[in-house]
Amino acid sequence: MEAYFDNSATTRCMEGAAQLMMKVLREDFGNPSALHNRGLDAENYIREARTRIARSLKVNEKEIIFTSGGTESNNLAIVGSALANARKGKHIITTSIEHASVDQPMSYLEKQGFEVTRLSVDANGIVDLEQLKQSLRQDTILVSVMHVNNEIGAVEPIEEIGCIVKEHDSSCLFHVDAIQSYGKLPVFPKKAGIDLLSVSGHKIHGPKGSGFLYVKEKTKLSPRILGGGQESGMRSGTENVPAIAGLGFAAEEMCTHRAEHAAYLYELKHHFVQGCAHLPGVSINGFTDERSAPHIVSVSVEGVRSEVLLHALEDRGIYVSAGSACSSNKPSVSHTLVAIGLPKQLLDSTVRFSFSIENNIEEVDYALGVMEKLIPMLQKYTRH
Amino acid sequence: MEAYFDNSATTRCMEGAAQLMMKVLREDFGNPSALHNRGLDAENYIREARTRIARSLKVNEKEIIFTSGGTESNNLAIVGSALANARKGKHIITTSIEHASVDQPMSYLEKQGFEVTRLSVDANGIVDLEQLKQSLRQDTILVSVMHVNNEIGAVEPIEEIGCIVKEHDSSCLFHVDAIQSYGKLPVFPKKAGIDLLSVSGHKIHGPKGSGFLYVKEKTKLSPRILGGGQESGMRSGTENVPAIAGLGFAAEEMCTHRAEHAAYLYELKHHFVQGCAHLPGVSINGFTDERSAPHIVSVSVEGVRSEVLLHALEDRGIYVSAGSACSSNKPSVSHTLVAIGLPKQLLDSTVRFSFSIENNIEEVDYALGVMEKLIPMLQKYTRH
Repeated sequence: MEAYFDNSATTRCMEGAAQLMMKVLREDFGNPSALHNRGLDAENYIREARTRIARSLKVNEKEIIFTSGGTESNNLAIVGSALANARKGKHIITTSIEHASVDQPMSYLEKQGFEVTRLSVDANGIVDLEQLKQSLRQDTILVSVMHVNNEIGAVEPIEEIGCIVKEHDSSCLFHVDAIQSYGKLPVFPKKAGIDLLSVSGHKIHGPKGSGFLYVKEKTKLSPRILGGGQESGMRSGTENVPAIAGLGFAAEEMCTHRAEHAAYLYELKHHFVQGCAHLPGVSINGFTDERSAPHIVSVSVEGVRSEVLLHALEDRGIYVSAGSACSSNKPSVSHTLVAIGLPKQLLDSTVRFSFSIENNIEEVDYALGVMEKLIPMLQKYTRH
Repeated sequence: MEAYFDNSATTRCMEGAAQLMMKVLREDFGNPSALHNRGLDAENYIREARTRIARSLKVNEKEIIFTSGGTESNNLAIVGSALANARKGKHIITTSIEHASVDQPMSYLEKQGFEVTRLSVDANGIVDLEQLKQSLRQDTILVSVMHVNNEIGAVEPIEEIGCIVKEHDSSCLFHVDAIQSYGKLPVFPKKAGIDLLSVSGHKIHGPKGSGFLYVKEKTKLSPRILGGGQESGMRSGTENVPAIAGLGFAAEEMCTHRAEHAAYLYELKHHFVQGCAHLPGVSINGFTDERSAPHIVSVSVEGVRSEVLLHALEDRGIYVSAGSACSSNKPSVSHTLVAIGLPKQLLDSTVRFSFSIENNIEEVDYALGVMEKLIPMLQKYTRH
């Protein structure tokens, strides 16, 4: 049996999206910038994808900028808005548990003379709202908080954060990295005071190399990739029509069935968490109920190194990740696990299980059965 | 009959590349950064593509950085190298006929305090080498010249330019935008003193959203997209595995058969050019023999507006472009046509025919037949 439980790293592209991509690649391959109808045909795929996505977020179509993925969306949102609004101020607030695609642009901005405040989180990974209130200043131009943490599945109170930010200063921008939440939890920018929202295609059974940034109308943003002026000048380069079409398809599918999918994922998650409760030396990090994301479970196993457990599970066809798995093969200490105060001896003994709608309860039971036998054995082995 | 003659705007994805993408999307969908074998399987596709491309250019695999396309490659090459080498100097040389994805980053750098010299070209679009020699200064850090001009098919003497640049100062970087030449003309960075070379996938029957930048070992470059550190830290973000695999496939196919493809394209081109010679008021811009690119023909038609001709041809199933067609639906005066000194009355009377190996001589004959009837009619219409 096989069980792919690394869906927060990436998901399989859904069949409908793959089929659509194939059609675009083979038949409707025109350049959307072309003035003839081969161009218009291609442009129509983009228009349809934009409509589908705008509808899912209840925003205007003009507010969707297609990018090459979540990392580019986060870079454009953060660096693009900071540089465009630097005259107003150079202070930015984010959290200590952001993904590298947020954290690295922040470090870059620090080198450019910006000041970045990184908010603490509690043991469940929830951001400190009091600290946020105290950190907001007159020269704060941007607050960037992820919706769902990719390592432990913590759900940040983005609506409250949006309220606090906008009450403080309606012109202070609020960016949400929704890469792990879009299609899984409800997220509506207009309701949460969000000016910028990043999404990645391959986390929602869309194609890799696709993503978008929601940019609230009139938000000042400096483009990062310059050229032919596509995407309202915000992202030049011939549009990746097949991937955009696939993304639009997947987005609609995932958002239309979001509630039932979430219920299903919580079912898998609860079953898994309950099963883990019986395993010796095994603990779950953060919330496990509906206060957490439906698809992510962070599991610490006393006395077993993450990589050892990962490979032992892999030998039995179970795929999980150690750390965030998005950081190019570099196993390093997770700053999220440090931030939630995980005991030092568990930092390197934690793996992430992440589910998708393609998983089922039998796979979860299989994994639990394997873990029940495997973990005591590995713990024993480590002690020797 | 249909004849798609807009292959410099974009090409159809070749079947083998599309099939490979489908396999990756459906089956081998892992995240290359994952430590388990689903990740390794995905990584292998990238490694294979990198090997194929490195081989085609006779360079080291480590010197290939995958990007989301030609525009991103050009941006990374130009802005990335300028910012990384700014301490050495702030003078850059380019030409007056570059694509927007080179020209716009240059304008951006000018705003950042860099000085940009734009070299003139002659009536055939060939860059002035004497002016280049005179323009090189001690603080010149980068020379960027396209290999094949996208509008008129002019082939720049990149080997001579490389020689001149490196003789002047071996540490001055030489960037070549090879987006219209790779797979069509021989190009070997090591032979031409090239430090940075940009390529796009969808111009060579590969997928949109794919491309790469050749970066000579030890070249100082600042990444533009930050995050998980993929592509040796030069381009973060989960790799677009399906597109990279497709790109590698197409690159190998096109480079392996480059010479025979070029011969075939020249055949189509010569046949077309000869046919055009009989048409009243029709002239070809730039060289038409082997001194020009095999696939691009710029045609000026006295007394007929480009857009009128484009749509009249489109009505008969013939797809061409007005201007470069890569500039997001904005029909504006072509700076390339201005630079070659095209008479003012022809600036807005020029269309581009661009061929691919999927075209055939019957399509060319069909187009010639249509033009023979159409052009005198349109010319007459305009006069009224």
